[in-house]
Amino acid sequence: MTKGEMSNTDARVIRVGLLGCGIVGSATCRLLGDHAEEIRMRTGCTVEISRVAVRNLSKDRDVDVPADRFTNDAHAVVNDPEIDVVIEVIGGIEPARTLILEAIDSDKQVVTANKELISSLGGELIAAAEARGVDLLFEASVGGGIPIVRPLEESLAGEKVRSVIGILNGTTNYVLTRMTEDGLSLHDAVAEAQELGYAERDPSADVEGFDAAAKTAILASIAFDTKVTSGDVYREGITAVSQLDIALADRLGYVIKLLAIARLDSGEVEARVHPAMISKNHPLASVRESFNAVFVEGNSVGEIMFYGRGAGGGPTATSVVGDVVAAVRHLSEGGKAHRPHRLLELPVRAFDEIRTQYYLLFEVADQPGVLAQIAAAFGSHEVSIAGVWQEGQGDQAQLVIITHRARERDLQETLHELRGLDVVVEIKSVLRVESEET
Amino acid sequence: MTKGEMSNTDARVIRVGLLGCGIVGSATCRLLGDHAEEIRMRTGCTVEISRVAVRNLSKDRDVDVPADRFTNDAHAVVNDPEIDVVIEVIGGIEPARTLILEAIDSDKQVVTANKELISSLGGELIAAAEARGVDLLFEASVGGGIPIVRPLEESLAGEKVRSVIGILNGTTNYVLTRMTEDGLSLHDAVAEAQELGYAERDPSADVEGFDAAAKTAILASIAFDTKVTSGDVYREGITAVSQLDIALADRLGYVIKLLAIARLDSGEVEARVHPAMISKNHPLASVRESFNAVFVEGNSVGEIMFYGRGAGGGPTATSVVGDVVAAVRHLSEGGKAHRPHRLLELPVRAFDEIRTQYYLLFEVADQPGVLAQIAAAFGSHEVSIAGVWQEGQGDQAQLVIITHRARERDLQETLHELRGLDVVVEIKSVLRVESEET
Repeated sequence: MTKGEMSNTDARVIRVGLLGCGIVGSATCRLLGDHAEEIRMRTGCTVEISRVAVRNLSKDRDVDVPADRFTNDAHAVVNDPEIDVVIEVIGGIEPARTLILEAIDSDKQVVTANKELISSLGGELIAAAEARGVDLLFEASVGGGIPIVRPLEESLAGEKVRSVIGILNGTTNYVLTRMTEDGLSLHDAVAEAQELGYAERDPSADVEGFDAAAKTAILASIAFDTKVTSGDVYREGITAVSQLDIALADRLGYVIKLLAIARLDSGEVEARVHPAMISKNHPLASVRESFNAVFVEGNSVGEIMFYGRGAGGGPTATSVVGDVVAAVRHLSEGGKAHRPHRLLELPVRAFDEIRTQYYLLFEVADQPGVLAQIAAAFGSHEVSIAGVWQEGQGDQAQLVIITHRARERDLQETLHELRGLDVVVEIKSVLRVESEET
Repeated sequence: MTKGEMSNTDARVIRVGLLGCGIVGSATCRLLGDHAEEIRMRTGCTVEISRVAVRNLSKDRDVDVPADRFTNDAHAVVNDPEIDVVIEVIGGIEPARTLILEAIDSDKQVVTANKELISSLGGELIAAAEARGVDLLFEASVGGGIPIVRPLEESLAGEKVRSVIGILNGTTNYVLTRMTEDGLSLHDAVAEAQELGYAERDPSADVEGFDAAAKTAILASIAFDTKVTSGDVYREGITAVSQLDIALADRLGYVIKLLAIARLDSGEVEARVHPAMISKNHPLASVRESFNAVFVEGNSVGEIMFYGRGAGGGPTATSVVGDVVAAVRHLSEGGKAHRPHRLLELPVRAFDEIRTQYYLLFEVADQPGVLAQIAAAFGSHEVSIAGVWQEGQGDQAQLVIITHRARERDLQETLHELRGLDVVVEIKSVLRVESEET
């Protein structure tokens, strides 16, 4: 490519300030360096990392940025009049929020990978950016390297999206894959994920579904032109999923995944994260290991799916740099991030009002009339049973029930009544089944 | 949503002229009508179909556009000073090319779904649009409803794409799925696809790979910032794929798909469409029925895949209307379609220089020394054999060979030599195997 290379001197220089230089920040530095010629060719601009704010100046970062560009004064970076674009990859609410607002007030374009911040205060930040006429771009906050924010905002801008179902957390998908395919226990699979660097030492943000819930809030907000925050998202982690659940799911033609579900129904938004059974024929069922995917259903487009690496320095940096290129193009060619002119204020449906199918596993007493009593409890709460059978015999007898679509509150009231029955020794599992049944 | 509806009078009116009103055109009309409120909310503009050019004025179109807006004078539409955006869904080279150039000269934004035109003359049309400062958008020309052009041009604008492998033709994927899963013959599967409306009465554009080759040219051009036309794409259809090939592939852990492959290697572009075996574990292997998918490998992002309906009125119209919304936003808020500032002129690798693995099926004479003669032919052309075994016995004896990665020319020379051997009765199949082997 030497022949046609654009010389540096032809190109406008765009100066970037980087806030944070951990895994994603250092990968972003490397990408901006390694792909400088492609970026120059595509934008006509040279993107230069002018300053990098870090907490610890003495740490080695493995990036090709001169030492004198590092500072521990992040405020100086976002207020530097020479800087055009600020990249925030610190994570968390503060100081990221204050720094981003300062950057917007100083008329910088802002790119962030911060899911916590966007899922809780995205509305405030987007409004500040719009008021100032600058970009606030956050493709990297959901799905790592998977392009999903821009496709929803732009490619599907003429579509009515009905639902978005995602596998948005790579760690839990890895754990469930190992449990399903290799028979590992949850404990061992988590330990392995930690060894491989997929899971943190404290894995609760992943395992308990907090990470996926934040991403669900962002996707729901974009897909339905409304405001959903992470606090609006019902959340349940994978710790209760057992090997027996996985084996029974398999026999029924399902796999168990931690699903992030955002759905628009009768003017209300459903937003929830929980383990669920889905059919092996569903495209999400074949998303294995630490991969992520987002499955979108629209009125006109039907089913589409976006698949890729949901985390990691390289993939996340690709989304960050894609946003940087957009910001650079807007600076040099005009235009801006296109956001809805008006947002809806759709109510978020209370979780006990959702309707889905359920799988339940009970330990029951080995005596006649058990099924009649249990079935009566379901019937009295208008939960209709689609299938029931016994696993094991005698003292080992367990009962598996699959319901038709029912309301969560009715199911919970059924469970409450069941717990009071003498014939029910223990309710071992309750999992939702996401199916085509309506 | 009634409460917050924007009244028509608040919104700027953007006038659209539609060229062609067949399956995609009428679906586009319906979508612009059904989603008018969403589009108004997202853009602040009302999009109105002002004129529709059709060949036959007396045909019923099942669209909610007043009869007096129909005309059979397409030139009057593209030159109408009232019209802001022209949508071309006629297809084929002429008159589409002339009409699009006229629209550009009249400063219209242009949206097209025309793969034949973009794959053969896209460079000329894009240059004309850029010179005039208007948009030429063509998301719908590849992958139907799947967002792929914009994600490649924008989301991956900071990435170096190494390869794009697609299932880009729904008809052939449907046919191969039915042959694989239900044992249908090619003939019966094609007939069924015709009955279902997936295949034309003359199915050759699909079955012979012309449709996929055009789309491959468009994807290769965008992915590698260069110009590849459909004539540059090596093309081979699915008519030679037999039930035995499919059964043997299955036994080897592969499925047979019509793959569209675009790859950048040592500064050269590979662009080819042919049936190939891919591992059942590959994400493309689970793309069934008439679905399409595009699998992208990038230096930093790793593997990503985009999946959805590659044809049909609704999905294609979603992409058309997504582009219309982009054009509307550019008209009302500024900005433009972002294209590379400079294109490379990468050479397209001659097909006989590509390197891949091969599967071969022979009918051979039932006598000693056959394998030695055949192996010698491979060896003399530097094609290394990875595996060989016999299928059937006696007169029914067939030989299956899988090679290591070899050069296409060497393989062809091997085949030439094999055809001259007395022990080779017939070379029944030659299929490429797309694997991880390098």
